Amino acid sequence: MEPYVHKVQYYETDRMGISHHSNYVRWMEEARIYYLDQIGWSYHKFEEEGIISPITSIHCDYKKTTTFMDKVFIEVSVGSFKGVKLILNYKMTNENGELVCTGSSESCFLNNDEKIVNMRREYPDFYILLNSLAEK
Amino acid sequence: MEPYVHKVQYYETDRMGISHHSNYVRWMEEARIYYLDQIGWSYHKFEEEGIISPITSIHCDYKKTTTFMDKVFIEVSVGSFKGVKLILNYKMTNENGELVCTGSSESCFLNNDEKIVNMRREYPDFYILLNSLAEK
Amino acid sequence: MEPYVHKVQYYETDRMGISHHSNYVRWMEEARIYYLDQIGWSYHKFEEEGIISPITSIHCDYKKTTTFMDKVFIEVSVGSFKGVKLILNYKMTNENGELVCTGSSESCFLNNDEKIVNMRREYPDFYILLNSLAEK
Amino acid sequence: MEPYVHKVQYYETDRMGISHHSNYVRWMEEARIYYLDQIGWSYHKFEEEGIISPITSIHCDYKKTTTFMDKVFIEVSVGSFKGVKLILNYKMTNENGELVCTGSSESCFLNNDEKIVNMRREYPDFYILLNSLAEK
Repeated sequence: MEPYVHKVQYYETDRMGISHHSNYVRWMEEARIYYLDQIGWSYHKFEEEGIISPITSIHCDYKKTTTFMDKVFIEVSVGSFKGVKLILNYKMTNENGELVCTGSSESCFLNNDEKIVNMRREYPDFYILLNSLAEK
Repeated sequence: MEPYVHKVQYYETDRMGISHHSNYVRWMEEARIYYLDQIGWSYHKFEEEGIISPITSIHCDYKKTTTFMDKVFIEVSVGSFKGVKLILNYKMTNENGELVCTGSSESCFLNNDEKIVNMRREYPDFYILLNSLAEK
Repeated sequence: MEPYVHKVQYYETDRMGISHHSNYVRWMEEARIYYLDQIGWSYHKFEEEGIISPITSIHCDYKKTTTFMDKVFIEVSVGSFKGVKLILNYKMTNENGELVCTGSSESCFLNNDEKIVNMRREYPDFYILLNSLAEK
Repeated sequence: MEPYVHKVQYYETDRMGISHHSNYVRWMEEARIYYLDQIGWSYHKFEEEGIISPITSIHCDYKKTTTFMDKVFIEVSVGSFKGVKLILNYKMTNENGELVCTGSSESCFLNNDEKIVNMRREYPDFYILLNSLAEK
């Protein structure tokens, strides 16, 4: 799968002249939605099923700064998924292939009643697919 | 009425070292909600009535830059209101009393069916109050 | 010239379920930089000349809401330019060709000493180019 | 020390109707600057010393959602500090005293040459103070 590409915008920089660190969390969201879409689980598909997927935990390790006009390549991979909490890992590199940030997110799945959905039970296809993609 | 005060945050600056111009539009939102709350029409009150108030037009004239740690004092006043389109004016000054930005917003009022509400007819109290506050 | 395309991100939506109106000002920045780059005046070129270009005024008329996953097509055109204040106009449409927002920005040009640069005098090529592109 | 208070803004919500998770990272920045200011190390003091303090790692565990108009109370405490990497912990509660988010940040200190500053050696007062405040 092609990595997701984010082009850093002017308004994403701060007075240190670099991309503000909070934006990487937003880019992880962009990459996560892209990744799920690429494997056949678009945001619209979840929406049709009445499922939302809030973030329960986020982690970022900043390795190298980026700034306006930089392209950030984001690779997403499945850390672990037993059916309730999905852990995704993110590896961000710049145009020179240098690591700029690694991160991870934990998210869960809620139905229309805001009850947690066990995806292993309710959407076994999704569970099996994600596990087939999980890092060994 | 005391002006609304916004303290510029680090993440609101850009690589020019100044508050990014898009943030002033957000501060106008903060000041608008504060102003309406102060005159007795809090966001919650509108919400209880099932009314939302989207922005239909925005204008900003930037006079002087601001940056992290600056306090921006925002005075809101009623430009005009015939019942459908509310025009508010904004005057932003810094701690030295210097003008940093003037702006205006136009908003309307929608009910739960996303139909435009004529506030003069449906909420005459609001209409009369706003007009009593309007600039002559 | 191809219009600039912005894909609305999840984090750009608000609790009304639509793109927050402040984001259109950011998209105008994206489109402006793209436009200037397309006509041969990239951000890097200005930077090499020691020129920054702050926004002095912004205007947006919101015509139709957009939301997450929408593509917004932004056409930029030169409103007027006598050498000091550049007025650009923006026309944003959705995938159905419907108008979602029109806007304009006014910007000036500053050198390293934060003095205003008369582009007609100092960069006649830029002045002539922009005027050749200006709306009649 | 009084906790830092952030009032959730309308533009910080997303289409789930809650504060977008990326904003908590920004509120941690607000609380961090406030905390350092309260203990005598304002941003301006660092700036005068020619020191900037970029974030090298961030972590957030989201416990409960917040939304527009909520007040979030943020307590900052020193996790550990040996002179180079400062780890701060954050505890965010709502007006009912319920935990909404816990987080941590790791930051370092750079001088004008972008070299890492060993604060234990160069600013022993800061080092001693932070360690006197560190969690046992």
